[in-house]
Formats: sequence, structure tokens, C-alpha cells
Amino acid sequence: MTAPFDDLSTFRVLLAERPGPDTAAIAAAEARDAQLTKPAGALGRLEELAIWYAGWRGDARPRMERPQVAVFAGNHGVVARGVSAFPAAVTAQMVGNFEAGGAAVNQLAQAFGARMTAHPIDLDRPTGDFVEGPAMSEAELVDALAIGWNAVDPEADLFVAGEMGIGNTCSAAAIAHALEGGRAEDWTGRGTGVDDAGLARKTEAVAQGVARIAGEKDPLEVLRQLGGREIAAMAGAILAARHHRIPVILDGFICCAAALVLHRAAPGALDHAVAGHQGAEAAHARLIDALGKSPLLSLGLRLGEASGATLAIGVLKGAIACHSGMASFAEAGVSDG
Amino acid sequence: MTAPFDDLSTFRVLLAERPGPDTAAIAAAEARDAQLTKPAGALGRLEELAIWYAGWRGDARPRMERPQVAVFAGNHGVVARGVSAFPAAVTAQMVGNFEAGGAAVNQLAQAFGARMTAHPIDLDRPTGDFVEGPAMSEAELVDALAIGWNAVDPEADLFVAGEMGIGNTCSAAAIAHALEGGRAEDWTGRGTGVDDAGLARKTEAVAQGVARIAGEKDPLEVLRQLGGREIAAMAGAILAARHHRIPVILDGFICCAAALVLHRAAPGALDHAVAGHQGAEAAHARLIDALGKSPLLSLGLRLGEASGATLAIGVLKGAIACHSGMASFAEAGVSDG
Repeated sequence: MTAPFDDLSTFRVLLAERPGPDTAAIAAAEARDAQLTKPAGALGRLEELAIWYAGWRGDARPRMERPQVAVFAGNHGVVARGVSAFPAAVTAQMVGNFEAGGAAVNQLAQAFGARMTAHPIDLDRPTGDFVEGPAMSEAELVDALAIGWNAVDPEADLFVAGEMGIGNTCSAAAIAHALEGGRAEDWTGRGTGVDDAGLARKTEAVAQGVARIAGEKDPLEVLRQLGGREIAAMAGAILAARHHRIPVILDGFICCAAALVLHRAAPGALDHAVAGHQGAEAAHARLIDALGKSPLLSLGLRLGEASGATLAIGVLKGAIACHSGMASFAEAGVSDG
Repeated sequence: MTAPFDDLSTFRVLLAERPGPDTAAIAAAEARDAQLTKPAGALGRLEELAIWYAGWRGDARPRMERPQVAVFAGNHGVVARGVSAFPAAVTAQMVGNFEAGGAAVNQLAQAFGARMTAHPIDLDRPTGDFVEGPAMSEAELVDALAIGWNAVDPEADLFVAGEMGIGNTCSAAAIAHALEGGRAEDWTGRGTGVDDAGLARKTEAVAQGVARIAGEKDPLEVLRQLGGREIAAMAGAILAARHHRIPVILDGFICCAAALVLHRAAPGALDHAVAGHQGAEAAHARLIDALGKSPLLSLGLRLGEASGATLAIGVLKGAIACHSGMASFAEAGVSDG
């Protein structure tokens, strides 16, 4: 498919004019939930999840049969400052690992029946060092948004966006700091495991990058200035999923920074998304909170590459299975209290 | 199979003399984990889970292919005091629902590839009202422990115990209060949704039952005095799984009360078990803490019937898939930082 935009202003229109859920399907799903053989509310968050999913799929008794996991990869000019524990070459090496089926996310996608696709974006052309100048030109940003949009299978019934990009927790921290305020150290963590000296360099890079664009509050311009291609692609993909009415599970810190751009540009833009997990990167909890979400899992992951969100497919699968498969009190001949 | 005990003293020996994990398999699993294509520790709790599972299965690169979910059901004399929102007849009705495939746990077991079995125990013969006297005779307790033991498939590679029994949060609260102290109201909650007056009656029953056996600290005697047949069966099943070296996922408040009996009788008796979830029953968090566990999920469930633990099979499945399926840095040609 081809993305329905080739400039930023058209992308902004698509962000502003987005479909909502099917309120009749929500009402019908709520009515169904009330008759299932369990005390009211006894499945807790599984009930909310199933009803939310029903609303976006327009089906009061939905199934989930075609989940898609897309992993976007990009390289970052800021890495030259020594902000990561791993060299930039690892981005391409890990894309090879995704394609060969050897990464964590491959195993998780297989375990939960999801199709996984990898999308390396111009790995031999890192973004500009955001401390010195814009990470991307407007044309580069639009290209990355479109790659993300086009990666979404319109026939999928769940979408998970993930990323790989040495240095990208630095870029994500800068985006969050620019849009949410606070101090650079509030948003900057160890990523894949940078040491104390590297963390100090990383925090300084975040502070300087944000200071360079001081006062800039347009989320898409912040994304252009401080972001990476894989981060922009995730934002494009999440908006595409909305237009296809495909529910989304958000992944870790970097995915949530991409989502934050949409959320700050258009409140409600993430209503079709849930937070899959809260990771170990310290600022992830703060970022999820800024999105107004509550994580499904909290297991100390800090890998990115869609791993936490793909694990959370299991929770959603369980929720939908209960909602759509359980007997009602009447069907089962059970007294309802 | 036939349980290797027909009296309580032999059960006590089996509880005291139980196998431990395979330390060589643990060491080999740890060595494998260190070489997988991820930053060290980046899969958080999934790494611990996979290594724990490897130790109990005696296999550094295990698979999980035969999970079993067993749901035990029993009726409780204390129900006549008006401690539940549902009538006692619902226990048998829900067993019918399990057998017909209509309950939540049926859907979850199917979603995660587990075989589910239902074990109603003397539903037409409720336990004695524990406010007035012992819930069970010693022979009844031994029978229920043996039913649980025999329910475990020795060929299973994961075991989940769950329960159904109108009034059994009252019995579980009494066991926890007797063994852990505190006040009756610390351990007594709304169960399936009892109203304020019912909660007051329930708390009073817990307080009176525990007062009746004041000073009794032998966990198996507490189980006999205050427990239910399905609670005893879960305790028997959890110990049987230990002897078969089958890892266990613990379910909700009632399952954890059964596990508490083993834990207080023999510290370390639950080393082969993890807490699947923290439910909405207020005292469940306190009980998990008493077991020295940390829950995998916390999604506000309060259904019992093994539902939360069965959902947590997905987390364990993901952990094992990553551990046993991922490529090493060397295999994938990825620089390890």
C-alpha cells in the first residue's frame, strides 16, 4: 500500500481526523460481559480489554487471529558522543538476527501466533547529531512516517510496534524531555547498560539537544529535531493502525516516546492503544503516565524490539478468549447470585 | 496412580523429604542465558523464570509442552451462615460448566495449550461448619490430600491448581488468620462480591473459627480444622508436583492459602512454585508476601478457578521460548558490547 500523505501537513490532517471506536459494539460487548458465568467484574482488567478490543474491531464477540509485530530500525548520529554501551554496528547485526529468527521478539511472536516483520531504515545513513542540529530534514521525517504507515498490514487485527537502534533511548529521552519538561536526568537512563561516564554524556546530550530547540512545543517538529527514523516510523505506524481500526499494544520507552508525539499533537490519538508493559528503564513509568495509560505487565524488561508488547499479546489473547468463548449464566444453567 | 500415603504422618514425611532442583541444570541455563543476543538482564524476570524452570525440569534448554490445569471443587458448612453472595448450589453448577467447557478457565487453558481437568469432591457432603467444630476428620483430610496428589499427571511439565467452592474465601481467610496472625478483618474480603452485612458475618465467622482453635499452629491441623476439601486437595497436588519435579504456578487467594499450609509446615516447600497473579481480594497481596513470592501479573482478577495462574502460563511460555529459542551472540554474529 501507499501512505495517504506525502507531506507533513497532510499527516497532520490524518492525525486530527481519525476514526473513533464503534460505540454500538462497545455497548453490545458490555451487555455480553454482564451475562458470562463469573461474578460481575471478576475478570478485572481482562473485561475492560475485551470490551476495548471489541469497540475498535466493531465486533461484540471478536476473535484475534492475525496479530502483527513490526520492528523498525534506525541509526543515530548522537551515538558518536559515546552515549551507548554498544557500537552502532549492532543495529544492522540485530536486524540480521531478526531476519534469521534468532532474537527474543522472534520467539515471542511465534509463541503468541504473531507475524513479525523487520524494517531497517537507511542504517548506513544515521540521523544528524541532535546536539548540533536537526536529526532529520522534513522530507526525511515524512519518509520515515510513511515507511511506518506502509508497514501496517490492513488485514491485521492487532498491531505491535517495536524498534532497534543503538542510541535510541537517548533520542527518546530528548523527545520526552522536550515535550514533558522536567530535567534531562528525569528522562535519561542506562538503556542497554551504559556505565556512569556514558550516562553522564548521554544526559548532557539530552540537555543540550533540548536546549538547542528551547520553547519548541510542536510535537512533530520535536520529533524531526530530536527523533530517529525508527521512532518516526513507529508514530506513522500507530496512526495507520488507527485509520485501519487495528488496536495497538505499545512497547517500551522508545515506542512510548513515539506514541507521546501523537498524544501531544492530538489528545485521544492513542485511544486505540494500550501500554503492553512497564520496563526497567526508569523513565518508562513516567512516560506511560504521561500517556494516561496503565501497563498490562511489569516484569523488568528493558530490551525494546517489541518484546514486552509481544509478551502482552498473551494477556489480550486470554481476555478475548474469555469474553468470546465463555458461556452465559443461562446457557450453563448457573444461578447468577 | 495412587498417592504414596494413606495417613497424615506419611504425608508429613513426604513434605519433609522432598526433592530439590537440579543445580547443574541451573548453572548450565545461567551460562546459556549470558550468551543470548540481548544485553545482560534485559529480559528481566523472564530470565529468572526460564532458569528456575530449567532447574526443576533438569534441562538447561527446556520446552514446555504439557501444561496441566486442575480445578478442585468442594462445599463448605460455613456457607449456612450467609457468608457468600452466591448459594452453595453454584459449586456443582460451575463444575458442570467446567466439564462443558464454558467457564473462564476453559478458555484460558485452551488459549495457552493446557489440558484442564475438574475434580469435584463430595459436593453433596459439605465440610463441617468450622465455627462450631472441625471442618474435616483426619480421614477426610487425608482423602482430600490424596485426591489432589492423584490428580497430578506425572507426565505434565507444568501444573496449575485452582478451585471452585462457594464460601471458600471464608475458609481460606480463616487458615491465613490462624497461621499468620493479625486480625480477622485483615484476611477477610468480599470474595465473589458479598455485601456489607455478609462481609460482617464472614469476618465474625473467621474470628470465631480461629478463636475456637486458639494457639493451634500445626499447619495441617489448621487445614483440617478450618479448611475445605478443595483446599486440602490443592495442597496435596502442589506437593505431588514437587515430587514429580513439575513446576507450579499458584493461583488466587484460596490457592495461596493452600500453599501457605505447606510453606508453614516446611519452609522451602514452595520453591518449585511461582505466584501467577495478584488478585483483587484485598488480602491476596498480604498472603503472597507471606509466601515470599512476587506475582507475575496484577490485573485485578478475583475469580479463582485457576484463571489468573492459567493466564500466567503465557508469561512462562514466553520466558521459556526466549531462553530456549534465541541465538547466541556468536551464532548471530552480533557484537556483545
